[in-house]
Amino acid sequence: MKRESRLVRWIWWTVVVTALFLLGFCIGWFSKPSKATTNNHKTSSKYLVEFLDEMQSDLIRDHLRKFTRLPHLAGTEQNLKYAEEIMKEWQDFGLDSVEMVPYDILLSYPNKSEPNYISIVDHNGKEVFNTSLAEPVPHGYEDVSNIVPPYSAYSPKGHPEGDLVYVNYGRTEDFFQLEREMNISVTGKIVIVRYGKIFRGNKVKNAMSAGAKGIIMFSDPVDYWAAGVKPYPDGWNLPGGGAQRGNVLNLNGAGDPLTPGYPAKEYTYRLNPEEGVGLPKIPVHPIGFHDAIHLLKNMGGQVPPANWKGALNVSYKTGPGFTEDFKSHKVRMNIYSNNQVTRIYNVIGKIRGALEPDRHVILGGHRDAWVFGGIDPMSGAALVHETVRSAGKLLKKGWRPRRTVIFASWDAEEFGLLGSTEWAEDNARLLQERAVAYINADSGIEGMYTLRVDCTPSLHTLVYNLTKQISSPEEGEEEFSLYESWHKRDNWTNDRDAPRISKLGSGSDFEAYFIRLGITAGRARYTKNKKTERYSSYPVYHSVYETFEIVEKFYDPTFRRLRAVAQVRGGLIFLLADSQVLPLDANEYADSLRKYADSIAHLAQTHTELMETYKVSFESLFSAVENFTNAAKGFHERLQTLNIEDPLQVRIMNDQLMYLERAFIDPLGLPGRPFYRHVIFAPSSHNKYAGESFPGIYDALFDIENSADPEKAWREVKRQISIAAFTVHAAAMTLTPPA
Amino acid sequence: MKRESRLVRWIWWTVVVTALFLLGFCIGWFSKPSKATTNNHKTSSKYLVEFLDEMQSDLIRDHLRKFTRLPHLAGTEQNLKYAEEIMKEWQDFGLDSVEMVPYDILLSYPNKSEPNYISIVDHNGKEVFNTSLAEPVPHGYEDVSNIVPPYSAYSPKGHPEGDLVYVNYGRTEDFFQLEREMNISVTGKIVIVRYGKIFRGNKVKNAMSAGAKGIIMFSDPVDYWAAGVKPYPDGWNLPGGGAQRGNVLNLNGAGDPLTPGYPAKEYTYRLNPEEGVGLPKIPVHPIGFHDAIHLLKNMGGQVPPANWKGALNVSYKTGPGFTEDFKSHKVRMNIYSNNQVTRIYNVIGKIRGALEPDRHVILGGHRDAWVFGGIDPMSGAALVHETVRSAGKLLKKGWRPRRTVIFASWDAEEFGLLGSTEWAEDNARLLQERAVAYINADSGIEGMYTLRVDCTPSLHTLVYNLTKQISSPEEGEEEFSLYESWHKRDNWTNDRDAPRISKLGSGSDFEAYFIRLGITAGRARYTKNKKTERYSSYPVYHSVYETFEIVEKFYDPTFRRLRAVAQVRGGLIFLLADSQVLPLDANEYADSLRKYADSIAHLAQTHTELMETYKVSFESLFSAVENFTNAAKGFHERLQTLNIEDPLQVRIMNDQLMYLERAFIDPLGLPGRPFYRHVIFAPSSHNKYAGESFPGIYDALFDIENSADPEKAWREVKRQISIAAFTVHAAAMTLTPPA
Repeated sequence: MKRESRLVRWIWWTVVVTALFLLGFCIGWFSKPSKATTNNHKTSSKYLVEFLDEMQSDLIRDHLRKFTRLPHLAGTEQNLKYAEEIMKEWQDFGLDSVEMVPYDILLSYPNKSEPNYISIVDHNGKEVFNTSLAEPVPHGYEDVSNIVPPYSAYSPKGHPEGDLVYVNYGRTEDFFQLEREMNISVTGKIVIVRYGKIFRGNKVKNAMSAGAKGIIMFSDPVDYWAAGVKPYPDGWNLPGGGAQRGNVLNLNGAGDPLTPGYPAKEYTYRLNPEEGVGLPKIPVHPIGFHDAIHLLKNMGGQVPPANWKGALNVSYKTGPGFTEDFKSHKVRMNIYSNNQVTRIYNVIGKIRGALEPDRHVILGGHRDAWVFGGIDPMSGAALVHETVRSAGKLLKKGWRPRRTVIFASWDAEEFGLLGSTEWAEDNARLLQERAVAYINADSGIEGMYTLRVDCTPSLHTLVYNLTKQISSPEEGEEEFSLYESWHKRDNWTNDRDAPRISKLGSGSDFEAYFIRLGITAGRARYTKNKKTERYSSYPVYHSVYETFEIVEKFYDPTFRRLRAVAQVRGGLIFLLADSQVLPLDANEYADSLRKYADSIAHLAQTHTELMETYKVSFESLFSAVENFTNAAKGFHERLQTLNIEDPLQVRIMNDQLMYLERAFIDPLGLPGRPFYRHVIFAPSSHNKYAGESFPGIYDALFDIENSADPEKAWREVKRQISIAAFTVHAAAMTLTPPA
Repeated sequence: MKRESRLVRWIWWTVVVTALFLLGFCIGWFSKPSKATTNNHKTSSKYLVEFLDEMQSDLIRDHLRKFTRLPHLAGTEQNLKYAEEIMKEWQDFGLDSVEMVPYDILLSYPNKSEPNYISIVDHNGKEVFNTSLAEPVPHGYEDVSNIVPPYSAYSPKGHPEGDLVYVNYGRTEDFFQLEREMNISVTGKIVIVRYGKIFRGNKVKNAMSAGAKGIIMFSDPVDYWAAGVKPYPDGWNLPGGGAQRGNVLNLNGAGDPLTPGYPAKEYTYRLNPEEGVGLPKIPVHPIGFHDAIHLLKNMGGQVPPANWKGALNVSYKTGPGFTEDFKSHKVRMNIYSNNQVTRIYNVIGKIRGALEPDRHVILGGHRDAWVFGGIDPMSGAALVHETVRSAGKLLKKGWRPRRTVIFASWDAEEFGLLGSTEWAEDNARLLQERAVAYINADSGIEGMYTLRVDCTPSLHTLVYNLTKQISSPEEGEEEFSLYESWHKRDNWTNDRDAPRISKLGSGSDFEAYFIRLGITAGRARYTKNKKTERYSSYPVYHSVYETFEIVEKFYDPTFRRLRAVAQVRGGLIFLLADSQVLPLDANEYADSLRKYADSIAHLAQTHTELMETYKVSFESLFSAVENFTNAAKGFHERLQTLNIEDPLQVRIMNDQLMYLERAFIDPLGLPGRPFYRHVIFAPSSHNKYAGESFPGIYDALFDIENSADPEKAWREVKRQISIAAFTVHAAAMTLTPPA
């Protein structure tokens, strides 16, 4: 018994010792954090909600109020002061770093001692009518100095004099109609066109190509008056004395005209001023419709076609003395503006990424304004400001995004997207290796109807998911999501039951990021009802009437619309920066490619016979799209089985997602447009504002029926189809398993 | 006592329990592998040694023997057969995947029914002398068919006839001397030049620019005979009937002349043949010196300067009948070659990386040969083959590299680096995001003296470290390392006490990878004694005498030199693919940049006054180099403190190292050379074989004293300095902490 008892005791002892050891072992094993888990900083939806909720309408209002008191044109002291304030506040909000990044770029200003204007001169050369030198200043701003009068930035100096010819909107098709159908030449004449439909720089280019010696642009009430709305300050329509400022460059993405391709630093080589990229060669000037009426009366003999009639047509068609009193009158432009190399300032703020500091998500928008910038751009800049503030709050609570977030307050956007493009050139190496996405933050509002999103296809799904988490800002829709509110107002066409999302065009600071560098990009703002409101942008666009008050009184009295836009932009940044797996959707890209391929092939089908003659086929492109579609599908299937505990495997698939957009970049660029390098998207060659899909093919097909050398023209179509097919194949390859 | 004893027992129990628990806990804690450690697949130096030791001289000999029995010109059936054999053997060796990648590119062949030759014609137009139609075939190969006769690939067809003018090596400076000092014009004449010093395509370009209507190239014994060596087969000198084949393109990196910038796939758009990039416009033909003697006698009246005398000078200067018998004789070229689009085949083999399959290390060399390719390229291809075999052995032992390794057997290198360039174009997106390094594997041996390495500066340190681990192949040096043997024979100049490493030029398949895409690159081979052996490449270069036997009898009878080269190339691949932290050295790049900046500034100093007049300064470039130097230093300091247990932190710093070379790429390319995009290195504009540092500045300064518009010329110098300075600054930025 004793031996037995000892045995039992030993057994008991062994069991206890083993059990204790095992217990310790297990606790030790499981309590040790595995490296991967530590690293797999997961997105906290709690933080997203906090981030969005923290954004406040009242503060957006305050930011807007603060930064719209004084004119702050690029290159002026006031715009530097605002930059310094923004820098200081971003530091106070808690960003890790904020810096001021200057460049010395070519800007253009009116001559303060010799104002620009346009005259009607009689046969003795006497000026019998002069256009106004400035817009009537709105109430409350009478004592403000430094309001730059309406002008066309980068117009050369000059005093052309001649007959005036009206060319509708100055579009390519308008000049075709004038020259081919009406048999009117503008060579040696001065052209007058109405604003709208296309980017003003394209109008100027068309006038130059047609041989005009000057061009005048005016805002016709048909295009700049909303029905039933009064002119500012009683409503938000453009007064007759208001005119649209704006640059008239054709930069095609070059940035500073004197330093194309390189940042405009102190040591940078500059072209001679006359060699500058995209500078107009003929004088250009904008006027309001009160002045335009007078000039239009002087178009001796020209009877514009019915479809060219604006609101002012009565004057220029049958006005008093038409073809009689004014027969010998000419129009003279008097332009004294100067181009000068001037220092500008971007403000760049950063939140260092916790795990992947070398992955960058950028929220950028401009700060410079033509005058006060009540809408453009401060209704966007105020939202960036509020986003930074909200992010700072979160940082103080211990949050830190997985990836680095960069906030940018760009300068000199109004002069050709210059601040943002110079910074892109300066940082091109870093951006092409490290940039995950660029979200643009220009004007937050241009109408009172619903949300408008333009973005690359891989962001579609993220935009939909995010807007479902944001509330509608519209009164009476408190229980609806922004998605629902937007969906109801702007459903996609037959294609799909979801809110419409459009292609990115250009005309704002995302251009260099998206179209030159191939960075995933998007923009969001509140917009008008496109079906019923036909004016371009909004009536007071680029006039002195873009004040804080126009937003507060008319566009967004509660500032809830702007808050919703801030939440969309900020939410995109948040999710792109903080999601473990990048929320990008290659399948959506595949769908869009198919649509674009169908569309361009359809366009070409108007020339079926010639396509047969020259053996032009879209087969290779469709086959490439098919290949891409399969690659995208396969990629997302593999993504489902990704081991998210393995930081390298996560990084590898994220890199594939990040570099997808980059794969569409052709380093050789589009024909004649070396800085437009995206094969799928480019600004239209006929309207910088609009996005064109498969732009190389589109441009090769354009007006091909009038080509002087059809064989050569169709060879170019084939070349462009081949480039597009290859590029889509190459992009598909990036989505396959990497080895 | 009892209570005390119980207390003691309790204490004892508690201690035991706690101790056991702690023991278990500790064992549990420490025995659990942390994720990071699992992932941090460390380089096993044991595996490196095994990998290098596995490579065998006898097998290299066997591979070389096997693939040099028959001519295997690009585009021929035999070259496809070798491709298929290589593919099969690589599969057998154990690669994860091997595929054949075809392209359809423009090749050039002599017309089989109408051979090319050159005649001397008398005043009646009668051909009084014709050059030989083929080289005498070496012993043992008499029955071999399909030996292509010497020709200049891509020469247009033509029959130019005219006086012959001798222009030494046909270099830029030779034409300058002829035209400016000797006042001889070659317009409308046929030029004859000796081979050597520069790439033959540059000679042709110079002759075209000078207005010649044809160009003949010959191998002068001064340039192609080693002293005291007999002609093949008794020695390794070039027989008098031997001639150098070769392409005479000026592609500047474009790849297939008909598909510049894009891979030559079936669907790819092709230029019209006459639009092809880099095609010579005048007939070109190569001859041996037995034939050259006859032609040189016909240069009526031209007395070449003393420094132009080759071994044949006696003939053309004072030969029988000089200026008398032959005064009315002319030279006629008869060229019937055809350009034709032909299918070629690259073989691509892969070993999938264990941890970072999306990081690629490439070992590539060509397979196509002008005839047998005994030296060029099979002495290199045999080494790739042996490297694949050795890697396969390791794979079977359980080794798998951290990163993906890609082995390539390129086709059509001899026709302008076409196979490798097409594949680079095809895979450009993947390569620019994922390629860590490209190691070239052309001819393994061109002399019997010592090692020769050309590589990008960031590889210097790795090359030195590796060669210290490889044995000298020289007899009697068994106890020395390759490094010591090399160091003894080719010390760097005053700069540094280490073996000399040179810049990469071009003329082999690394070009697209390094100069277009900016991938870290290098090459290694065994070479001659540059100080005593003045011939270019090696005497039988591109002749029918490049046989297996010339290697076995003369260049490397034990095959130990080739084995050492295989170990260098293979060792580089191994360490680049398997080291946890990439073995790249940014500090070496900084040192080289400083040297190059000093050198280009020194060159410009020959124009001190003009530099003052036009305000040209290198200050911005020196400041950029300084900045880069500091950034590199800081980077390597931080690398010392890198937490190698954290896979993301390791990846982030490796990415910085990988992308360093990429940062020197300017997407706009060099002036007139869009596919040469590396701002630091490019093939010389005057000799494709040579590397030029800061090529943009160099070319802007070239012959500037004779510029027609000095102001414009100096502005271009300033522009190039500005681009160089910016690029170096931009590269420095990539080495700073990423946020």
